Amino acid sequence: MSEPLGPVDAAQVPRFAGPPTFARLPRRDQVEAVDVAIVGVPFDSGVTYRPGARFGPSALRAASRLLRPYHPPLDVWPFAVQQVADCGDVACNPFDIGEAIAQIEAAADELHGAGARVMALGGDHTIALPLLRSAAKKHGPVALVHFDAHLDTWDAYFGARYTHGTPFRRAVEEGIVDTDRLTHVGIRGPLYAAEDLAEDARLGFGIINTMDVQELGPRGITDRIVERVGDAPLYVSVDIDVLDPAYAPATGTPEAGGLSSRELLAILRGLVGRRLVAADLVEVAPAYDHAEITAIAGAHVIYELVSTMGLEGTV
Amino acid sequence: MSEPLGPVDAAQVPRFAGPPTFARLPRRDQVEAVDVAIVGVPFDSGVTYRPGARFGPSALRAASRLLRPYHPPLDVWPFAVQQVADCGDVACNPFDIGEAIAQIEAAADELHGAGARVMALGGDHTIALPLLRSAAKKHGPVALVHFDAHLDTWDAYFGARYTHGTPFRRAVEEGIVDTDRLTHVGIRGPLYAAEDLAEDARLGFGIINTMDVQELGPRGITDRIVERVGDAPLYVSVDIDVLDPAYAPATGTPEAGGLSSRELLAILRGLVGRRLVAADLVEVAPAYDHAEITAIAGAHVIYELVSTMGLEGTV
Amino acid sequence: MSEPLGPVDAAQVPRFAGPPTFARLPRRDQVEAVDVAIVGVPFDSGVTYRPGARFGPSALRAASRLLRPYHPPLDVWPFAVQQVADCGDVACNPFDIGEAIAQIEAAADELHGAGARVMALGGDHTIALPLLRSAAKKHGPVALVHFDAHLDTWDAYFGARYTHGTPFRRAVEEGIVDTDRLTHVGIRGPLYAAEDLAEDARLGFGIINTMDVQELGPRGITDRIVERVGDAPLYVSVDIDVLDPAYAPATGTPEAGGLSSRELLAILRGLVGRRLVAADLVEVAPAYDHAEITAIAGAHVIYELVSTMGLEGTV
Amino acid sequence: MSEPLGPVDAAQVPRFAGPPTFARLPRRDQVEAVDVAIVGVPFDSGVTYRPGARFGPSALRAASRLLRPYHPPLDVWPFAVQQVADCGDVACNPFDIGEAIAQIEAAADELHGAGARVMALGGDHTIALPLLRSAAKKHGPVALVHFDAHLDTWDAYFGARYTHGTPFRRAVEEGIVDTDRLTHVGIRGPLYAAEDLAEDARLGFGIINTMDVQELGPRGITDRIVERVGDAPLYVSVDIDVLDPAYAPATGTPEAGGLSSRELLAILRGLVGRRLVAADLVEVAPAYDHAEITAIAGAHVIYELVSTMGLEGTV
Amino acid sequence: MSEPLGPVDAAQVPRFAGPPTFARLPRRDQVEAVDVAIVGVPFDSGVTYRPGARFGPSALRAASRLLRPYHPPLDVWPFAVQQVADCGDVACNPFDIGEAIAQIEAAADELHGAGARVMALGGDHTIALPLLRSAAKKHGPVALVHFDAHLDTWDAYFGARYTHGTPFRRAVEEGIVDTDRLTHVGIRGPLYAAEDLAEDARLGFGIINTMDVQELGPRGITDRIVERVGDAPLYVSVDIDVLDPAYAPATGTPEAGGLSSRELLAILRGLVGRRLVAADLVEVAPAYDHAEITAIAGAHVIYELVSTMGLEGTV
Amino acid sequence: MSEPLGPVDAAQVPRFAGPPTFARLPRRDQVEAVDVAIVGVPFDSGVTYRPGARFGPSALRAASRLLRPYHPPLDVWPFAVQQVADCGDVACNPFDIGEAIAQIEAAADELHGAGARVMALGGDHTIALPLLRSAAKKHGPVALVHFDAHLDTWDAYFGARYTHGTPFRRAVEEGIVDTDRLTHVGIRGPLYAAEDLAEDARLGFGIINTMDVQELGPRGITDRIVERVGDAPLYVSVDIDVLDPAYAPATGTPEAGGLSSRELLAILRGLVGRRLVAADLVEVAPAYDHAEITAIAGAHVIYELVSTMGLEGTV
Repeated sequence: MSEPLGPVDAAQVPRFAGPPTFARLPRRDQVEAVDVAIVGVPFDSGVTYRPGARFGPSALRAASRLLRPYHPPLDVWPFAVQQVADCGDVACNPFDIGEAIAQIEAAADELHGAGARVMALGGDHTIALPLLRSAAKKHGPVALVHFDAHLDTWDAYFGARYTHGTPFRRAVEEGIVDTDRLTHVGIRGPLYAAEDLAEDARLGFGIINTMDVQELGPRGITDRIVERVGDAPLYVSVDIDVLDPAYAPATGTPEAGGLSSRELLAILRGLVGRRLVAADLVEVAPAYDHAEITAIAGAHVIYELVSTMGLEGTV
Repeated sequence: MSEPLGPVDAAQVPRFAGPPTFARLPRRDQVEAVDVAIVGVPFDSGVTYRPGARFGPSALRAASRLLRPYHPPLDVWPFAVQQVADCGDVACNPFDIGEAIAQIEAAADELHGAGARVMALGGDHTIALPLLRSAAKKHGPVALVHFDAHLDTWDAYFGARYTHGTPFRRAVEEGIVDTDRLTHVGIRGPLYAAEDLAEDARLGFGIINTMDVQELGPRGITDRIVERVGDAPLYVSVDIDVLDPAYAPATGTPEAGGLSSRELLAILRGLVGRRLVAADLVEVAPAYDHAEITAIAGAHVIYELVSTMGLEGTV
Repeated sequence: MSEPLGPVDAAQVPRFAGPPTFARLPRRDQVEAVDVAIVGVPFDSGVTYRPGARFGPSALRAASRLLRPYHPPLDVWPFAVQQVADCGDVACNPFDIGEAIAQIEAAADELHGAGARVMALGGDHTIALPLLRSAAKKHGPVALVHFDAHLDTWDAYFGARYTHGTPFRRAVEEGIVDTDRLTHVGIRGPLYAAEDLAEDARLGFGIINTMDVQELGPRGITDRIVERVGDAPLYVSVDIDVLDPAYAPATGTPEAGGLSSRELLAILRGLVGRRLVAADLVEVAPAYDHAEITAIAGAHVIYELVSTMGLEGTV
Repeated sequence: MSEPLGPVDAAQVPRFAGPPTFARLPRRDQVEAVDVAIVGVPFDSGVTYRPGARFGPSALRAASRLLRPYHPPLDVWPFAVQQVADCGDVACNPFDIGEAIAQIEAAADELHGAGARVMALGGDHTIALPLLRSAAKKHGPVALVHFDAHLDTWDAYFGARYTHGTPFRRAVEEGIVDTDRLTHVGIRGPLYAAEDLAEDARLGFGIINTMDVQELGPRGITDRIVERVGDAPLYVSVDIDVLDPAYAPATGTPEAGGLSSRELLAILRGLVGRRLVAADLVEVAPAYDHAEITAIAGAHVIYELVSTMGLEGTV
Repeated sequence: MSEPLGPVDAAQVPRFAGPPTFARLPRRDQVEAVDVAIVGVPFDSGVTYRPGARFGPSALRAASRLLRPYHPPLDVWPFAVQQVADCGDVACNPFDIGEAIAQIEAAADELHGAGARVMALGGDHTIALPLLRSAAKKHGPVALVHFDAHLDTWDAYFGARYTHGTPFRRAVEEGIVDTDRLTHVGIRGPLYAAEDLAEDARLGFGIINTMDVQELGPRGITDRIVERVGDAPLYVSVDIDVLDPAYAPATGTPEAGGLSSRELLAILRGLVGRRLVAADLVEVAPAYDHAEITAIAGAHVIYELVSTMGLEGTV
Repeated sequence: MSEPLGPVDAAQVPRFAGPPTFARLPRRDQVEAVDVAIVGVPFDSGVTYRPGARFGPSALRAASRLLRPYHPPLDVWPFAVQQVADCGDVACNPFDIGEAIAQIEAAADELHGAGARVMALGGDHTIALPLLRSAAKKHGPVALVHFDAHLDTWDAYFGARYTHGTPFRRAVEEGIVDTDRLTHVGIRGPLYAAEDLAEDARLGFGIINTMDVQELGPRGITDRIVERVGDAPLYVSVDIDVLDPAYAPATGTPEAGGLSSRELLAILRGLVGRRLVAADLVEVAPAYDHAEITAIAGAHVIYELVSTMGLEGTV
């Protein structure tokens, strides 16, 4: 098998030029096989407040031009130890949530079937459900580490059972996540009801809230996450609103009191050694961004996740 | 009957203070009867490109604080010759276009039933259909003057027959508009197909495009519109994207080469004397606005329409 | 007495729709009595650098749409254990600081007289003086916890003794604060003179600066504040510039090196158990905001303060 | 007498570098005598809606870096035929309108006394009154061409007789303008009362509204202005809100339907040959600007006025 | 030969999704041969004021997603009558203007050699020189219609003879343009010297300034342009600053008093029938854009130019 | 010798008015001798991603208006214990990096020769090389504390050996820094190659990365820096991108996971007692700023550095 094809060489093509793929990586049609599939899911019809995450994949790709090929703290070349490719966008019906979910699931199935791990760029959090379904078809019920200000385990909203507020309840109901290995990280802000917490716990989730991060620091948090995940196949879902609005203004339902980007990156780095089989980064709504700071933070999160996949790939 | 209750007095309460209703007018519950009902329709799930018009009513109300009670060119006091009231927002289901349309229609029916003319603040252009339905129930098929960069007479998009691109085809099919009295104003930009124009003509629409405005000026345009409208009950639908993006950046599907706000106001003023029974101002997506320029333009359009209603009301 | 009337139900009316009151709470005229009065004070004629806080109440209300009714860390339903209502704006004369101060004091007196605790939305910091006067009339000299980058204990500026830089010196002079129980939190940045610190100390203030927060963390800070406040009636005044400009860009006199929103919320939470009789949140100048991050932070601060009032209310 | 000292040479110092004076012109202390005094008046305490014009002089200076020394349509070198100098800012008391007006008048008197014509950079429109007073002391009652969306001839607002809405009524009352030679240009938008127009006419003003500009074009407008001005000493006052918000978003009380910058420049050019003795450009509120478009338009207006002064100077 | 491959079908893939090529057209490697080559030239090291046009190609591609396949006023399907393809970016050395110019010329030569007409997306105006060189190698000296606020016929700046202010003087010197057929359109604003105009005339240029457009309207302007161009091979160079800053805030050297986007599109449409062999659209600096209005205007200009190429192609 | 001339008195001239020098300090021509020379270096032609730092000096000066004369934590009056003056901008050739570097070096030499310590306002990081050269001519090889997200010790980029990515390698090669006393602070983000780290270490640099700051806190970091610096003459170079994009969005190559402004200020304060001979603050690119937060952070950094110089000056 040939060497992985990496990003365009920044010594030949300035970073503000060249292919508009994620990190200027090759497209899928340019490589033989894909180990990690970057795929855009420009869907935001499941949003309850600010829409606009349909433009998230574009913004994340633009901000990812700044990424470079070597990750010093992890000592890994994420684009060299595995073939990472930009697989374009899933075309989703913006007027039919059910059809869109089916389209996303089919696209993820195809990628998984081709041997790739999926790194999805949202889009709103609705997309986590079909992505989890597809991961579970391949790996069985997966452990979940869910970074978010919100629980996303509501039952329904305006009669709709499939929105950006419900994916993880649906996932538990469908048996596609391992209910002994479910963790929310970054929870904060007011809720509709105290019962939301009780139900969330009944579903199997543990909660690490932002004040825990304030007090324990990233290392302490990492320990708690890792203990819970163990060596199960792991899905990581990152809602960018886990960051404070100062770090991620461009998101659909911002909440004050969030994580810093440094804390988030530190915690993600603690996942090295876990069996990360798929991931998503969602809820970047670029119309609210400034100087790309949300998209840059998102691009770094994706880089971190792909690097972790690369470390496993070499094991 | 008592005198109409007008806006809060700006000599007592600074314009940056006071009630957050449109033009600081009374709420519906503060008045006995309503002649003109300002009503927000925060719905944008029918959008094909940039979403966000769900925040349009809020932005229009905020920008309307600057409006004053006397309209010099028309020599009318629009809030004194008739009772104008802010009737709040229609609560629409963001996840079910069909249900939302039904909710909007019911709300408009209720207002029409109470004797009010409806001045709707969108929201996306999907809302024009239920508003037209309701107007037609009361007045029969209505003449339509439609200000927009786009025809909005597509048949379907992604299988969806009810979106912001289709309301006027549906209206013709449903027999709720007078097909001898249909005019688009401000059309420009590329189309999906030449056939779109032919079908639009078959539906009964006449087109005044932006280059016509460039060459004829507002007076020439007004003459053409008035001739077509005659004395039929008239519905005016204004998509803010009829303005050039310089004047209305904050909209869902901007097109270069549009009208100036002065041209639009001048043309609207030419409608004085028509039987304006209802109107909408749609597609203000505030996340893309700057210094409120789009919302200010929108607020002035609404003021113009309400003033025209006021002039008729005195006849 | 009837149950408190809470916010509009988000399951019926989407959060981007509905009444534009704070947190979509009832207006004062919709309820029998008010326990906590949210009141806007759109006044900014006391500002020395960037004006614009006159639009603060509007921005805070808009950003408060995202708030929900249950506060998990405090396990309190702030809008159910007490009647919270939006009492609109105080109409202040923008051209006469003295008259405006009198208008604010009168409005606060009226609310206090009706049995409400006042939660004021500024406006610039000038408004703290009449609010303190009113609180002291009811409760006697109050303890003060003042979150700010600045001391706000200047004597005069351009001959003006009543501006946003002087309220707390005036308050000491007028005997309306308890000089054994005065604390600044978040102080930083250069001063006009070393003497400013000495005078501030003579007035009775203790200072917790931002480097203290860096080193002690919110818990350590809370201990120091609580010790000082004791069980005296407490007024909390929060200038949003206590936050770093990254968290609160939209303010009149920003200073680098401030608190994070998480730190501020944590410290505020430490006030549970104190006798919080009134509070203000000031200096949000929305023209400088981006993606509402300042206003969102401000809305959360207000929510925290109202929740604390709610906890006491149940005791 | 020596040659006028012009701007820094752009062939030696890039336009983004060098002295931060208007157009990179010399400061007053660098020249012997001044023919045209550019002077900032950072005062905005007379504003009724959006404040922030206190930062107008800074923004206009920054945007003026792009200006060059030769004016082709008028064939004049405005900085060579006369000594133009940046005389810095008038220090005004932000808390006392009366004192500020006195400070501005004194500063203008000093400049007039030194033989300079004053070109003032606002600041809000309140400043026109002391500037007119000073001009009238030197030249007698002056003709006035007033570009604005608003009449600015109110009597009082919140009891204040000196605000940005009243300077021209005060000027008539004080006998410092020639009531046969008063013209508003660009008027539009709703008023508080029909009586406002009648009173304005009684004061002596003629009105050219924006629809006149739409129909007559700049040449037609110029003819009407010139006829009225005649050869009287002329003061030109330009409120940047005479431009449409598309061209000048950054202003205190924007109104849709305004002039384009091209129309304004063309009309101003028609003033060549009049006896322009002083001028102001006011109401640029930079916090609302984008990409400096308002400030750039303002800088060009100032350049036009200074060039007109230069043409006269050579006659 | 096969049918041209057009853009992705918007009925299958929403316009906010799909390939990030210009107008979602095929890449060059996806087609057999190219009739019109869209090519990005992300180079801005020749800028004298605001840099940032290096990000212009990305912004123009993003804004072009809104374009549709049929051009009604010209009754042409620009992407069906000819093969239009996105040929990616020219990799230019940002630190060596000379090398960059050589790289651009080589890239254009290769495209011309492959039978394509070049439609270049700048980048700053420096790039016009190598593009003209390449066009002239194929077609001989070309007629030039140059839309711009500025002449761009300086000799040198800071000793540099190749910058965004000099391409057309160099082009005349190199004999690559037909000096009987050179026209500037949209000139305005002050100059460094009167001599600049004289030299420009000596080089052979005719000038249509913005006040000509104000008075003659697009039709009158078109007649003058067409007369001058005749049936020579034509190069059209559009500096987006030909538009007023209201329409194109995001550019390097903005000047008030410019064209509207409608005027520019109308004038461009008047070029139908000319032999348009190559074109550029330059000076979009996205860091200064708002709501993409500059990039949208630019994308429409490009669409107009490609459509004109398409009409010729069918003749 | 006379007392140092300080900033304009804010009690006489509001901070939004007065001279546009840094901190409203005197210009060089207003004082006899200069101890600390604030000098702008508006050069950004060495940038590899987002340009625009040429406007950095202007933005830093504007944001510095808020600074006051007394520094409480250090108990120093930085503008009274030494003469600080704004020495204007170095005029640099934007088209010739080599010439610009020579111009900067000459300007710094002149200032050093006049007995001043240089506090440079960039501009991009290219400028550090000539500034170091000049410092070393006076003081011999200097210790360097370099705050940055990046190493800036590349060898070349696109063949260019002098860019914003290479100054510190050149400095080592030229022998102008003391290779036993070189420290990077704030390093993070991916690199082009692992070898970059090895080479950086061979050059003599020690690295304190952002995760070290997360874990050790500012005090721990300070200890490590001070140990390395010792009592050697010290040059401090601060790339504003050492801050997280939340704190400094307006910079050329932002990286997530950076320092907070409070951490940076705390670390800088730890340098008190070192022999700070010169410093720079670079890479503020204002087109990407919002509400001046980046420039405000930068102005505070400069204030900190000048205060440290002042403390030494009194020793």
